[in-house]
Amino acid sequence: MKLLKNAKISLLSIVGLLIFVAHASAQSTQDSIMLRKIYNECMMNSNAYLHLEELCKEVGGRLAGSPQAAQAVEMYEKWGKTIPGVTVTKQACMVPHWVRGRAEQAIIYREGTSPIIMHPCALGNSVATPQKGIRAKVVEILRWSQLDSLGKAGQLRDKIVFYDRPMNPTFVDPGEAYGDAVDQRWGGASRAAKYGAVASVIRSVTHAYDAFPHTGVMGYEDSVKRIPAFALSTIDATLLAACIHGNPNLELYLWDECQMLGDVLSYNVIVEMKGSEHPEEIITVGGHLDSWDLAEGAHDDGTGVVQALEVIRIFQQLGIKPKRTIRAVAFMNEENGNRGGKAYAAAAKEKGEKHIAAIESDGGGFTPTGFSCSNGNRYQNALKHRWFGLLSAYGLRDFERIGGGTDISPLGRELGVNLFGLEVDAQRYFDYHHTANDVFENVNAREMNMGAAAMAMLVYLLSEDK
Amino acid sequence: MKLLKNAKISLLSIVGLLIFVAHASAQSTQDSIMLRKIYNECMMNSNAYLHLEELCKEVGGRLAGSPQAAQAVEMYEKWGKTIPGVTVTKQACMVPHWVRGRAEQAIIYREGTSPIIMHPCALGNSVATPQKGIRAKVVEILRWSQLDSLGKAGQLRDKIVFYDRPMNPTFVDPGEAYGDAVDQRWGGASRAAKYGAVASVIRSVTHAYDAFPHTGVMGYEDSVKRIPAFALSTIDATLLAACIHGNPNLELYLWDECQMLGDVLSYNVIVEMKGSEHPEEIITVGGHLDSWDLAEGAHDDGTGVVQALEVIRIFQQLGIKPKRTIRAVAFMNEENGNRGGKAYAAAAKEKGEKHIAAIESDGGGFTPTGFSCSNGNRYQNALKHRWFGLLSAYGLRDFERIGGGTDISPLGRELGVNLFGLEVDAQRYFDYHHTANDVFENVNAREMNMGAAAMAMLVYLLSEDK
Repeated sequence: MKLLKNAKISLLSIVGLLIFVAHASAQSTQDSIMLRKIYNECMMNSNAYLHLEELCKEVGGRLAGSPQAAQAVEMYEKWGKTIPGVTVTKQACMVPHWVRGRAEQAIIYREGTSPIIMHPCALGNSVATPQKGIRAKVVEILRWSQLDSLGKAGQLRDKIVFYDRPMNPTFVDPGEAYGDAVDQRWGGASRAAKYGAVASVIRSVTHAYDAFPHTGVMGYEDSVKRIPAFALSTIDATLLAACIHGNPNLELYLWDECQMLGDVLSYNVIVEMKGSEHPEEIITVGGHLDSWDLAEGAHDDGTGVVQALEVIRIFQQLGIKPKRTIRAVAFMNEENGNRGGKAYAAAAKEKGEKHIAAIESDGGGFTPTGFSCSNGNRYQNALKHRWFGLLSAYGLRDFERIGGGTDISPLGRELGVNLFGLEVDAQRYFDYHHTANDVFENVNAREMNMGAAAMAMLVYLLSEDK
Repeated sequence: MKLLKNAKISLLSIVGLLIFVAHASAQSTQDSIMLRKIYNECMMNSNAYLHLEELCKEVGGRLAGSPQAAQAVEMYEKWGKTIPGVTVTKQACMVPHWVRGRAEQAIIYREGTSPIIMHPCALGNSVATPQKGIRAKVVEILRWSQLDSLGKAGQLRDKIVFYDRPMNPTFVDPGEAYGDAVDQRWGGASRAAKYGAVASVIRSVTHAYDAFPHTGVMGYEDSVKRIPAFALSTIDATLLAACIHGNPNLELYLWDECQMLGDVLSYNVIVEMKGSEHPEEIITVGGHLDSWDLAEGAHDDGTGVVQALEVIRIFQQLGIKPKRTIRAVAFMNEENGNRGGKAYAAAAKEKGEKHIAAIESDGGGFTPTGFSCSNGNRYQNALKHRWFGLLSAYGLRDFERIGGGTDISPLGRELGVNLFGLEVDAQRYFDYHHTANDVFENVNAREMNMGAAAMAMLVYLLSEDK
């Protein structure tokens, strides 16, 4: 209406506008029909859940470098080859090979009463205790400033530092609460070692109150003595804290035998469907095939890799000939090195490939709510406007967050690729994350399939975009 | 900007506008601070999950009229009385008393092979089979038109009608898919009986593929012979369908002993916190205390009643003196009669009470996403604009849907009260709904507490609104 009031608008430009609107509207109707076909195909005939069961139950935990990770590579290759008209390749990368060894031990010793046996786990990439274990007094730390002041006062020397700061329950976004607490896991050992501590233990990074210890990657600073790093379940951590409050002189015994072995040859698996109009323009959709050894890696990230393959299956099944090339990629070694993600970006750079977009699902197989976008993602505006109506019909409305995914982040850094992360209702994600409780049974088929459909719909819009 | 361009706007009205904006902004800041306090109190100190455990494990299934329902009334009263400064009352209502009896039987008989034992359940309010059971041929029905054409051809006479139309997996909103399939449960028996059928059986109304039969209320048409109505789990329904396809002459044996007894005296429980400025204006927040007998009634609707009480606890704990009167109401008999909801509205009408709003949580203890609003709800605009920023910070963004809740619907119908329904990520709701699998363990504490916080925040905004 406002446009029409402007007398300077010529009849010609109005006609032009009408043609444009009519064209855009026809395009939108056609997209709308195709998105509905994609959604229905996924919700009625997806085989992602069967794949997830096979991966979780026949392979299970599959840390990079392990025989199980190699088995998972073969399995994904096998699945890819069942889809007609695609190319399946393995992309080599050297990965770290950390092994846990036998079950870790943690025992609380107090004078005049029985020891208390807890059930800890080593943090990923940690060094082991000496063979006889470590027995020392424990200092509970709730803030970094407390670590520094006690450390400078010499009170951490020969002690075990126990990082007991919980994941904050008042954060609405569990990912932010995770980010706020995980610094203890990542950097706690070296920061304690600087003050002469002999080991570090963290309260598991989770909102759940249960008996599962959560592993996850940690790192050492180069110039600092490497001390063993453990996690306790939230129940064990609460117990330890209560014991310390009652008896500050108690001693904790820790033992494990984890070790970092030499690098191992492993692979990303790439299932490619060639583009019909712009085969040189590549859209990657993926997740990571490796998982922590303790877990079946169902939500993290079995769902991501089976969803990515489902995208290709849907396109093939519906006879969609995408304009651009689509690749489902099962990345290797996201959990403790991201060597697969780096190798993928390095190869793309070396070959001069043109990657227009990459989508990752690594937040669990929960109800999808939208897509995060990398900084400067040129499609974010389309998500928020041009495509909003198309996607919001499927509950996808959240396109405001900054994000992407660990595996695809090198594509963004090295090649400036537009990155997307599947956003989900993630309130339960950190209940399962990196534990023996991240099992197939805790994934809801319908919720996970809705995520696969969301990915397929975005891939379609990106592939067919002008 | 547009306003300022209008030369007719006087300086006075601009000053007035500025004062209004400043005032509104101060109010908004104050509301924002208070909502954060409410949220944090709930996420850190809620006792809703402990209450839910007590209700599910110490009472369990509590169909209206049962001793367990009476026990639940006492329990809710007891909880209410632990909160200082509130009044706890019981509001009498007569409720139906339907009893299931011993476990139902369903057996497939085919010539020359062993019988197959299934695990059905009677639908709520159904009549029983004769004492010797019913054995008859089965006709699978997928569409009403099919029922009518077979019925008119006399092919349903003395048959068991098996309604096998599944919940449609391609609906995005599971509530809509439920609505689309539940007509078979509600009206299937009478519609089959009109054509001479001797019993009806439905495929359970759920997206889940598992062994739990889903009960739920059914009804009979007045002038039609009452025939027994059963549900089969989706696994059993799939099995029965396969058997029929292989052998259309198979026979199904059905037996149960459910019956409708005489009405029983029961109660709504009302926990009231008096308003400080407008005590005569009432805001109701509630759920239903009764559940199906098969279930622990965790998601349906233990969460609703413990969330409602948590709203009152939060207000008391934070020392909020609400301007208006707030009532947490545990309604009785939502599942098979809604007598509690009707009694509550009737009493309000009789006493000439002024109810300004009612909020119901009866969609499960999942991550909240917003509130549905009744037609003509005068606060819907505030939710979508004035309060949007305040609530969207907590993930509450969906205020477009038409809704409310069964228990509060008579308040809307009889008194024109503004109704709200807590909207949640309900994809899993119908997996558990009305089954033995609707147990405490399937409720996530954090998700349910987020729902309680959402209800408390809306109650606060309604109570303090000018």
